[in-house]
Amino acid sequence: MDITLEQAEALILAAKLKAQQIGVPMNIAVVDAGANLKAFVRMDKAWLGSVDIAFKKAKTARFFDMESGDIGTLSQPGGALYNIEVSNGGLISFPGGIPVTSAGEIIGAIGVSGGSVEQDREVALAGLEALK
Amino acid sequence: MDITLEQAEALILAAKLKAQQIGVPMNIAVVDAGANLKAFVRMDKAWLGSVDIAFKKAKTARFFDMESGDIGTLSQPGGALYNIEVSNGGLISFPGGIPVTSAGEIIGAIGVSGGSVEQDREVALAGLEALK
Amino acid sequence: MDITLEQAEALILAAKLKAQQIGVPMNIAVVDAGANLKAFVRMDKAWLGSVDIAFKKAKTARFFDMESGDIGTLSQPGGALYNIEVSNGGLISFPGGIPVTSAGEIIGAIGVSGGSVEQDREVALAGLEALK
Amino acid sequence: MDITLEQAEALILAAKLKAQQIGVPMNIAVVDAGANLKAFVRMDKAWLGSVDIAFKKAKTARFFDMESGDIGTLSQPGGALYNIEVSNGGLISFPGGIPVTSAGEIIGAIGVSGGSVEQDREVALAGLEALK
Repeated sequence: MDITLEQAEALILAAKLKAQQIGVPMNIAVVDAGANLKAFVRMDKAWLGSVDIAFKKAKTARFFDMESGDIGTLSQPGGALYNIEVSNGGLISFPGGIPVTSAGEIIGAIGVSGGSVEQDREVALAGLEALK
Repeated sequence: MDITLEQAEALILAAKLKAQQIGVPMNIAVVDAGANLKAFVRMDKAWLGSVDIAFKKAKTARFFDMESGDIGTLSQPGGALYNIEVSNGGLISFPGGIPVTSAGEIIGAIGVSGGSVEQDREVALAGLEALK
Repeated sequence: MDITLEQAEALILAAKLKAQQIGVPMNIAVVDAGANLKAFVRMDKAWLGSVDIAFKKAKTARFFDMESGDIGTLSQPGGALYNIEVSNGGLISFPGGIPVTSAGEIIGAIGVSGGSVEQDREVALAGLEALK
Repeated sequence: MDITLEQAEALILAAKLKAQQIGVPMNIAVVDAGANLKAFVRMDKAWLGSVDIAFKKAKTARFFDMESGDIGTLSQPGGALYNIEVSNGGLISFPGGIPVTSAGEIIGAIGVSGGSVEQDREVALAGLEALK
């Protein structure tokens, strides 16, 4: 099963509303089960450098079926996955990328970038609420 | 002046409706005045390989402030811009990428990929109607 | 609003004079509001490898609307943005990249590379004086 | 012997004046004897996509010590250097890139992009006049 555009747009809308609510312009990306870009928005005044980061967070979450930040706990110096970030054309291993599930199956992922990593993750989680 | 997300979403919505009307699932990308991605959707069942092409069509249109297809008429063997496509990390020089103007100024570009190039261009033009 | 070539050349001239004054040949890059290259000089005997670094410092500063070195304080092992440098085709997160503002708006960025990072930043700041 | 920044800036200034005279905003790049970027300007309203093309024209001219357009006569379908443009991270084989010589020795190259290829070459030649 794969995410639909309708679902992706619902995720982005809910995430965007949260971003507006906390007053932080965000880049929001959604990838499908194949880790290919499905939908994306950059809010006005959001960081240009976060286009790529939002996309890479979403890809990272789907590549390993876990939150992007979970990779980051393993990729530190001395860690089991040290510097895994250089693989796959660049991974982002800090919070803000989260798998999207439906009926217990992963159908894609959302990636958010534009604020602090806590804010990014908060906005990604708000997006996921739309599919519940 | 730069395109707003509201404008980009209006472009995408109008383009999407046209794509639905002609029954061809499309990838639709919008870049801003700096040729950076502003918004994107991939309709269900649209070609995966067209994600990048839609984006490159939009970039190409903004890079040279003309339709992507106009570049293609000049880049053929023996033409003035032969093989220009290898520049800028890859250009797409067939139809489907069109600058977006407002009050006579270019504020971004739209790129569409997923059908025949005639269909792609038709959908891009339909998108532009939203800002008129 | 976007930086003009006249402004970019004024930045570079002022930065170059400072570099001559401290006796360190520098690479100096200026990007516009869209993070696209506007102007660049490599002083005689400046490091070849700093061409790309000067450009990436300027891009990094505009990508996140802060000094490149500020990113570096967050991207260390254990930091919130660990290994963010692998995004965007390569970021430079040590000092020497600074946004350029005009009337409170960011219109571009300057990136300097060729000496110690303290010298790089000093030269970048000297460039910015030209627009005050 | 290698081009100096003073020479590169003289080339660019002369090229820029010619571009202003013919009313076509240009991207102008100068590389040194090692084909590394020495100086660059993008005139206001010049095409964003020509940043890379100006640079690649200059590199192409120095890579093969001939005008970029001369490569283009050999790279056509059926030609001796068919599709050579895909090498070296991308070559540009239409006019506008010209080697810079001093005392019979090649010390760098200039690349111009922003108008028709005839205009690009005219502006590059005008730049070279500055060193005569």
